[in-house]
Amino acid sequence: MSTSRKSAGKPGKTAPRFAFKPEMQLAKLARSCYERGWLLGTSGNLSAVVSRKPFCLAITSTGLDKGALTADQFVRVDASGSVVHGTGKPSAETALHLVVARVRQAGTVLHTHSVWSTILSEGHAKDRGLWVEGYEMLKGLKGLTSHQHREWLPILENDQDIPKLAHHVESVMKEHPRAHGFLLRKHGLYTWGDNLSEAKRHLEILEFLLEVLGRTAFAEPSTGARG
Amino acid sequence: MSTSRKSAGKPGKTAPRFAFKPEMQLAKLARSCYERGWLLGTSGNLSAVVSRKPFCLAITSTGLDKGALTADQFVRVDASGSVVHGTGKPSAETALHLVVARVRQAGTVLHTHSVWSTILSEGHAKDRGLWVEGYEMLKGLKGLTSHQHREWLPILENDQDIPKLAHHVESVMKEHPRAHGFLLRKHGLYTWGDNLSEAKRHLEILEFLLEVLGRTAFAEPSTGARG
Amino acid sequence: MSTSRKSAGKPGKTAPRFAFKPEMQLAKLARSCYERGWLLGTSGNLSAVVSRKPFCLAITSTGLDKGALTADQFVRVDASGSVVHGTGKPSAETALHLVVARVRQAGTVLHTHSVWSTILSEGHAKDRGLWVEGYEMLKGLKGLTSHQHREWLPILENDQDIPKLAHHVESVMKEHPRAHGFLLRKHGLYTWGDNLSEAKRHLEILEFLLEVLGRTAFAEPSTGARG
Amino acid sequence: MSTSRKSAGKPGKTAPRFAFKPEMQLAKLARSCYERGWLLGTSGNLSAVVSRKPFCLAITSTGLDKGALTADQFVRVDASGSVVHGTGKPSAETALHLVVARVRQAGTVLHTHSVWSTILSEGHAKDRGLWVEGYEMLKGLKGLTSHQHREWLPILENDQDIPKLAHHVESVMKEHPRAHGFLLRKHGLYTWGDNLSEAKRHLEILEFLLEVLGRTAFAEPSTGARG
Repeated sequence: MSTSRKSAGKPGKTAPRFAFKPEMQLAKLARSCYERGWLLGTSGNLSAVVSRKPFCLAITSTGLDKGALTADQFVRVDASGSVVHGTGKPSAETALHLVVARVRQAGTVLHTHSVWSTILSEGHAKDRGLWVEGYEMLKGLKGLTSHQHREWLPILENDQDIPKLAHHVESVMKEHPRAHGFLLRKHGLYTWGDNLSEAKRHLEILEFLLEVLGRTAFAEPSTGARG
Repeated sequence: MSTSRKSAGKPGKTAPRFAFKPEMQLAKLARSCYERGWLLGTSGNLSAVVSRKPFCLAITSTGLDKGALTADQFVRVDASGSVVHGTGKPSAETALHLVVARVRQAGTVLHTHSVWSTILSEGHAKDRGLWVEGYEMLKGLKGLTSHQHREWLPILENDQDIPKLAHHVESVMKEHPRAHGFLLRKHGLYTWGDNLSEAKRHLEILEFLLEVLGRTAFAEPSTGARG
Repeated sequence: MSTSRKSAGKPGKTAPRFAFKPEMQLAKLARSCYERGWLLGTSGNLSAVVSRKPFCLAITSTGLDKGALTADQFVRVDASGSVVHGTGKPSAETALHLVVARVRQAGTVLHTHSVWSTILSEGHAKDRGLWVEGYEMLKGLKGLTSHQHREWLPILENDQDIPKLAHHVESVMKEHPRAHGFLLRKHGLYTWGDNLSEAKRHLEILEFLLEVLGRTAFAEPSTGARG
Repeated sequence: MSTSRKSAGKPGKTAPRFAFKPEMQLAKLARSCYERGWLLGTSGNLSAVVSRKPFCLAITSTGLDKGALTADQFVRVDASGSVVHGTGKPSAETALHLVVARVRQAGTVLHTHSVWSTILSEGHAKDRGLWVEGYEMLKGLKGLTSHQHREWLPILENDQDIPKLAHHVESVMKEHPRAHGFLLRKHGLYTWGDNLSEAKRHLEILEFLLEVLGRTAFAEPSTGARG
């Protein structure tokens, strides 16, 4: 019985039985991000690499209420974004997740829409990014061991032409190989990690620092969001 | 036994047994909006169309704590606002819900009182509305497919003369047929959807964008809430 | 067994068995206000009149974590503030609760410490109060039927001399007989109601409006908290 | 069976069976601070003295998600910071906890990363601290009996050289023996108490007051965070 459910992806074929099933943990994370106001209005999407060979990515179906997300509301896609398992339609931004998973070798990719990331993505748009410098919180980003670090968070113009946007994301990530995330203008944040807990940590750190910068900006006329 | 409860609306008659019973889901939504601070102090009201023929609307009774709302605290009213089922007194703003349900053919109507909607309804009152433009979040509003959209959110003067206010709402909605909500000045937000999940999505999107605009306004002297 | 617990108040006497036991509901309200950040750091206190003849008030014991408050952490006091039931020490501000319960004939008295009430109690201290005008939310205050109302929220200097402060509270309440609450400078809010649900409604309305005024003030240089 | 787990600390020896096991309560406190956004991104750490003779401190292992912290994710260290019980790696800032536990004879030490403590630790860094004066909330700090108090909250430069930073912390604490906490610049807050409930109370009070000061600063050009 459970066999037939597991092999439901490709008609006529038996789907590989991956040991790693990230959907339940991703759904739990989505619900908690929704509570913080980072995934309101069905916005945002989450994904995790199920296997590299063959490549398989679990990603939220499009248009779902993240406050009530469940494991069975994910689909699995291959490297081209075609559904190999599940019945929903994958998120419109699947191509961006695929680029991040490939270029950064990320195990988990998180895309959120918070108030502060939206505000700062516009406030710093003319600079095509923003610096985050000297905060202890930065140490939690992979590879960093000191607060004495200057992190560049790139900002990309938003675009509904997803293949074009994916191409842009790929070149920005290659241009800034040490970045831990990027903002889409008036849209939201992308971040990632080797696994779910690292991606969750990066998300919380970047959202925290964006709030710090956003709230500080309002008191310092010469900087940031006032631009 | 359960039959007698279902037919409690009109004495002497057997109320139609509608298959659709939205009260439990509306109550759950109310409790979650209360947690976010959008329905404090017994403010706000929620409704859903139970049937079109005959027209029947489930709506919150007046004066209830939305943090503890239950399905049995709704009443059902007909197109004139008369109670056809349930024992409470319908919300004072039932007439506005009826207009929205009729003019927009909305299945669910949500009215919330958030801090940011209250602030912006006053800050932009002189313009009789406010523009929301270029945000990815807008795509979640029914009928929109791009962030490259300019959404007008009308603001109406508040009024205790509900029939007069309902008339005003109707003309504003006809004047702005593509609007997805409106603000009452120093009062709150109305939004709606074909069904509960669409209305919930619209609510979260509009509240999110009002917070973004509100927080941005404080850094930009020439705009918005400073007026 | 349960009899001996109920009569534990006055040694040698059997305490009256009051039908009304508000402690459990007050404790639940306290925990929810704590979650909103209105009762942090053991601050604030809540009380309810158990009976008028003889006068008996249930009030939080002093120094308790409101996030974990339970019904048995209340004491009952008489009109003079002496404990008639329970083993804790009544809140230091019991005398203020007694004044409100007597002068306003309030059934429930709530005293909270929120960020916005603290900020506005200082920002408007020189005016000895602040006006709240024209908000729909005001309609939820007892006796009001329109948003077209101008509510005066008195601000009193804080004082550790509680009998003196209680005297001051009494004269301010008599001077402003229509007020629904008052602020203590750099301290917090007092509000009340005929019963717990009315007091809770007043609390949520006043805290909501103080947040609206506080956030608005930062955008309007000529008003409020900038003083 | 349970014996072998309790004595797992020192191989070959039987660890003392301390009656006091603070880990479960600390883990619960951590989860609730995480919900408030004070321990995001695995930031922060919590500790409690298990015994003075021999000295033993329970402290969070490094790099853990505080939103899901459990009692078994703590280790126990001796006065030199060496692990005597448990298998994780103690927090990198263990030396700071040890200094506070020794110099202040604190039973519990809490270190959080909130948005407002981060902002104010930078805004007032040039003054090496900030004054908090006249708030009723101050009365909740150990030893204070009136709001008429002027509390100095020292700010130290952040440093990755933990022994050096611990030395700095010790001298600042001896210089300001009445301080109830201190800030690390662009990093976060340390506070403490005789026991967990006092430390929790101090944490909530200081975080509350930092938020009040932070929000007030934005309206008062001459003070604070605008610096």
